[in-house]
Amino acid sequence: MSDPLLVEVARGRAVESAHRGAVAIVDAAGRAVVAIGDIDRRVFPRSAVKSIQQLPLVESGAADRYGFGNAELALACSSHNGEPRHVATARRMLASARRTETDLECGGHPPTDRAAADALVAAGGHWGRIHDNCSGKHAGFICLACGMGVEPRGYVKPEHPVQRAISAALADVTGADLGEPAVDGCSIPAYAIPLRNIAHGFARMVTGEGMSPSRAKAASRIVGAYFAEPFMIAGTGRFDTAILTAFRGRVFIKEGAEGVICAGLPELGLGVAIKCDDGASRAREVVMAAVIEVLLPGESARAALGVYGRPAIFDRNGAKVGELRPVEGLAAALRAS
Amino acid sequence: MSDPLLVEVARGRAVESAHRGAVAIVDAAGRAVVAIGDIDRRVFPRSAVKSIQQLPLVESGAADRYGFGNAELALACSSHNGEPRHVATARRMLASARRTETDLECGGHPPTDRAAADALVAAGGHWGRIHDNCSGKHAGFICLACGMGVEPRGYVKPEHPVQRAISAALADVTGADLGEPAVDGCSIPAYAIPLRNIAHGFARMVTGEGMSPSRAKAASRIVGAYFAEPFMIAGTGRFDTAILTAFRGRVFIKEGAEGVICAGLPELGLGVAIKCDDGASRAREVVMAAVIEVLLPGESARAALGVYGRPAIFDRNGAKVGELRPVEGLAAALRAS
Repeated sequence: MSDPLLVEVARGRAVESAHRGAVAIVDAAGRAVVAIGDIDRRVFPRSAVKSIQQLPLVESGAADRYGFGNAELALACSSHNGEPRHVATARRMLASARRTETDLECGGHPPTDRAAADALVAAGGHWGRIHDNCSGKHAGFICLACGMGVEPRGYVKPEHPVQRAISAALADVTGADLGEPAVDGCSIPAYAIPLRNIAHGFARMVTGEGMSPSRAKAASRIVGAYFAEPFMIAGTGRFDTAILTAFRGRVFIKEGAEGVICAGLPELGLGVAIKCDDGASRAREVVMAAVIEVLLPGESARAALGVYGRPAIFDRNGAKVGELRPVEGLAAALRAS
Repeated sequence: MSDPLLVEVARGRAVESAHRGAVAIVDAAGRAVVAIGDIDRRVFPRSAVKSIQQLPLVESGAADRYGFGNAELALACSSHNGEPRHVATARRMLASARRTETDLECGGHPPTDRAAADALVAAGGHWGRIHDNCSGKHAGFICLACGMGVEPRGYVKPEHPVQRAISAALADVTGADLGEPAVDGCSIPAYAIPLRNIAHGFARMVTGEGMSPSRAKAASRIVGAYFAEPFMIAGTGRFDTAILTAFRGRVFIKEGAEGVICAGLPELGLGVAIKCDDGASRAREVVMAAVIEVLLPGESARAALGVYGRPAIFDRNGAKVGELRPVEGLAAALRAS
């Protein structure tokens, strides 16, 4: 991995750390309009492609059968904070298929949102699978199994009908040969896909181009759920929720672990996929903010992106002591392509 | 920053992410016996040099005046977890100089140790400055001020007598011109120092070479406190504490923020300084484990370093799905120099 420097971390006047990565911006026909770094290298998109993984939930009719609206569909695509509304929605999704959180196979961790985690502890509660940031996705998978009339148990395994349907959708939308899977943090198969193809998949999700009519309709419904329910995608203080809110209808965005972030820009018909080589979350957001600022210029963009485009680093007394920022020349490189 | 790749993050058979960095191993005379990457670049050592920053506390006589033993001296050099013994020791240090936690100027954050943080919340408590991972260091600074007979207030400012004494010690021990400071996370001055000099400082700390007799004696006492009280340096589940325990008396080690880790190896008379370019904590530990394995080979080293040298990545159901590991050739590069 020898991708170019994209982000620097300044403390005072010095650069303390720096992040490298690759950026692919691709149109719905699969043409790369921006290629920074090696966009043909295979990358695990992780949670960034949850929207694609939930296409079968909608296409199979299961989402309708269980009465899912935008909130449930958004949560099924989320990496949520484990805040009360996230947890309640995941429980409701499971209940609609007469299932419970004991059917979840996603492991578990304390709520990502500190206030939610502390409130749970203060109330004498314990974190479990329902608080896992992937519990909405898993609830969607269980409902897909039930809708397909198959036993949900083992739905995280590559050979389960649920995962077969999901990997078929992922291969179709990204146009990539998926190869053998590794395992994601929530135990489902994780496929490494060239960054170029991931971006292409996002261009397809927001345009419907190159998809069957039923798949394009499902994609449009899922994208609409992101736009209608930004909180359900992530939660309080999170980049995805902030961008979905500030650019409602204009930026379809989702982060993934290990420095991945993807977006679809409906008005331009473009998909964006970013991978920070070192897996840093903090850098992916700075790069995506730079991409949005170049592709969707304007006053509203600048206001919304100020916080994320050059995030301040504070000491623990609240004084600004540094910042993250795109390297000089990144905006020019994004414009030049 | 174009340092070489040092660590890769594997998921299944694929490399998902990777980390670059620099390694300096320097003897007490200042000769670099290993130089990987740019060891002349200035790096903020952050918390790694807390031992050097506490030399004035011992040399001034303040540590004796307030009755500090190994536990207090170790905590003064720590980035602790905020566990009950850490917090109680910081409070005791302050009380010995008739001060309280309201005199701390370090900001604050919830205890780093999740169990300690949850226990605090469950008991209806609130985190404060005393739980800050730097509270022991700040308690030491306040005691230094009191021992010097100066008003502690403002002790985090570069012009305060406490910081003047500390920066003089840092310049002396590292042999570096410190230049203008930035600000650390706990609001004290942060100086960027060439990695080579930081390693040199650690060689001096464990040998006393090139130091005045009183400074060498203070260094020896502080190094001894690390070896006597590994828990006080960090805490439960932490790399520094584990290595100090497993290699008691043989590896004087301390991590710093933004991918820094340093060590002194008394039996070899060497200092080690590592900076991961991207600031990743997870990578610094893999590199340091590789360094220790090469420099201090043997059965006990292998057993202790197994967990840290190639740490497993687990899914949230506890299955191993990947690992961090040194890049092929790192051990050879460390041996070749």
